[in-house]
Amino acid sequence: MRIITLTTDYGFRDHYVGALKGTLIRRIPNISMVDIAHEVEKFNSDAAGFVVAHAFPFFPEGTVHFIDVGIHYGHELIFYLVYSEDHWFIFQNPDIGNKLFYEREHRVWAINLKANHPFSFFLDEKMLDTIAWLLNVVDPLESLGSPLAQTPFDRYPLAPFKQGNILIGYVEYTDHYGNLHTNLPEKMVREFTEGKRFQVIFCGESMDIYDSLVTVGATTSAALFNHVGKLVITVNKNSAKKMLFNNTHVQVQIALVEW
Amino acid sequence: MRIITLTTDYGFRDHYVGALKGTLIRRIPNISMVDIAHEVEKFNSDAAGFVVAHAFPFFPEGTVHFIDVGIHYGHELIFYLVYSEDHWFIFQNPDIGNKLFYEREHRVWAINLKANHPFSFFLDEKMLDTIAWLLNVVDPLESLGSPLAQTPFDRYPLAPFKQGNILIGYVEYTDHYGNLHTNLPEKMVREFTEGKRFQVIFCGESMDIYDSLVTVGATTSAALFNHVGKLVITVNKNSAKKMLFNNTHVQVQIALVEW
Amino acid sequence: MRIITLTTDYGFRDHYVGALKGTLIRRIPNISMVDIAHEVEKFNSDAAGFVVAHAFPFFPEGTVHFIDVGIHYGHELIFYLVYSEDHWFIFQNPDIGNKLFYEREHRVWAINLKANHPFSFFLDEKMLDTIAWLLNVVDPLESLGSPLAQTPFDRYPLAPFKQGNILIGYVEYTDHYGNLHTNLPEKMVREFTEGKRFQVIFCGESMDIYDSLVTVGATTSAALFNHVGKLVITVNKNSAKKMLFNNTHVQVQIALVEW
Repeated sequence: MRIITLTTDYGFRDHYVGALKGTLIRRIPNISMVDIAHEVEKFNSDAAGFVVAHAFPFFPEGTVHFIDVGIHYGHELIFYLVYSEDHWFIFQNPDIGNKLFYEREHRVWAINLKANHPFSFFLDEKMLDTIAWLLNVVDPLESLGSPLAQTPFDRYPLAPFKQGNILIGYVEYTDHYGNLHTNLPEKMVREFTEGKRFQVIFCGESMDIYDSLVTVGATTSAALFNHVGKLVITVNKNSAKKMLFNNTHVQVQIALVEW
Repeated sequence: MRIITLTTDYGFRDHYVGALKGTLIRRIPNISMVDIAHEVEKFNSDAAGFVVAHAFPFFPEGTVHFIDVGIHYGHELIFYLVYSEDHWFIFQNPDIGNKLFYEREHRVWAINLKANHPFSFFLDEKMLDTIAWLLNVVDPLESLGSPLAQTPFDRYPLAPFKQGNILIGYVEYTDHYGNLHTNLPEKMVREFTEGKRFQVIFCGESMDIYDSLVTVGATTSAALFNHVGKLVITVNKNSAKKMLFNNTHVQVQIALVEW
Repeated sequence: MRIITLTTDYGFRDHYVGALKGTLIRRIPNISMVDIAHEVEKFNSDAAGFVVAHAFPFFPEGTVHFIDVGIHYGHELIFYLVYSEDHWFIFQNPDIGNKLFYEREHRVWAINLKANHPFSFFLDEKMLDTIAWLLNVVDPLESLGSPLAQTPFDRYPLAPFKQGNILIGYVEYTDHYGNLHTNLPEKMVREFTEGKRFQVIFCGESMDIYDSLVTVGATTSAALFNHVGKLVITVNKNSAKKMLFNNTHVQVQIALVEW
């Protein structure tokens, strides 16, 4: 049986995580659940997409990822089943799909909810049936009908762009250590810089790209590519968020420098 | 083997959750533990009762619920084993019982602790023996002696009451989203209103009851019945706690309105 | 197969806990993971050592404890495998070892990391191989080579000391309830006081040692020996941290008193 991961903004004070897990165990007694995060920032579907995008590749192929972040007010009575990079994703909030799949090949199925329970997307019978089926069937792709002809996940305005000699990205997530995660992929930076010397410029500070934290000096700000190949700005033994700036959507520039 | 759920105020900074789980695994190697919540407000037995009351019905029948919230100072050296609605509950703090079982049929056994370890109710051998037995025995009710003739869980002062044309309840829990959970059961509201039109009045604001969040307009305050049939006050994309009031034990009125 | 426990400062907002668990599950599909704590104070290796020291003895013998707290900047490219009191410990930050093993017999192996991934000690292949081997092999001690001739974990400056009629310890950890955990072991206090009457003096307040919280009066400050035999200062239904003082490394005195 496949594993299911859980990512929510339910928190650990209330009954929501318990109700979710109880519901899944009751329906699928031999289920194997792994918590990714339950303290995603409340209602923040961008953060949910970021967190899942940075955790899912470490799980075995075929893993199912359940995500419930963002309010259910005014939503259509559907949920999404997505297949991407040999993983499965189930969620209701389309903004999560925009964040997660903008840069990834994916196939989407939109499935009608049986009923929309207040406060409890995870109580929908149709969704529970889908999860139970997905965890147990040998080849889900074979039995599923055609995916949507057009993906609904096509909004993602802030892509990196070039401006003369400069490549411009932005900070898309600040983690609890204060590390600033940008939307600049290593591949794009390498293609842009073509082996020439360059610097990362952020909030008036310019910094080098390091291969490893091991070589970063004390209280130095540094840029590194993380384990999913995105540029991260960090400060040795301190919070880059506090020392440099404290907001997402701040520009980061990759500038070629005279050598 | 039955599942055991864990609800505590131990938090995730310290060693307490680890010590609890280690103790249970060491005594019952094939145990299946599910966390409901470990960040129940410190020492708040009312919150613990609320959280468990709203999570336990989703678990399979026969599940055992371990709850440790509220201080052990000055307690009697007993713990409670309760059977209610086909679930089992184990806890030491009687206030948890008052909150959980006031409205539920239940049978109570009071069991002497072997010894009261400072800071560590879960280290008591008698309690561990009871849990191990309960998780493994086929029909616990058959082997248990008579329950207490009178339940010790009979204090729960703030029940809803009628005042002329108005039904008055109160907010008994505020969740981390800021939703205000009242003690008004759907059944009582329906019987009181007898199909007539009514409004929910809270902190000077009157609002309608919705069937689903899907139809609630932007930043509108709304009342809904949640998945355990209690009235909840919520604000679309915002915190009802912040927008309306921020305390428990605030009155909520159900008023019949001229049509 | 052995159990593995996880203790980190990764928090529950970000992707780190998910990435860690996914990596372990992918490498060791039938792994049995138990969370001790993921909200250890950021970068605080002393807190990590304290938390693990107070949780590990409750787990079955042979359990493996993975600990990742404290930054990777400038560290040597090694990790430590430690055997102590029939448990196994894997971590990179040597300060965790100082805290955990100062008072315990232990054997240490230092193992070269394959590569140091930025932000991701747990992605190192050599470490994953070691964990997989350790969880599955019947007698790890038999197959391991010689441990280090000298332990690297020998720094722990603030040991309790005697000053005339007074035994002086200090607060080494404040838990989330506000209980103050000292470094004074029961054995040392008993040997020092030789059955004579004594009092615990802390921040100008003197208090008695209680056997159990059950007998502590309302809002009384009290000292007790906890489940690992260390002196803890607590205040009935309140936070000792708030009521007495709020810092670690504060002196606690055990003074013999006239009778």
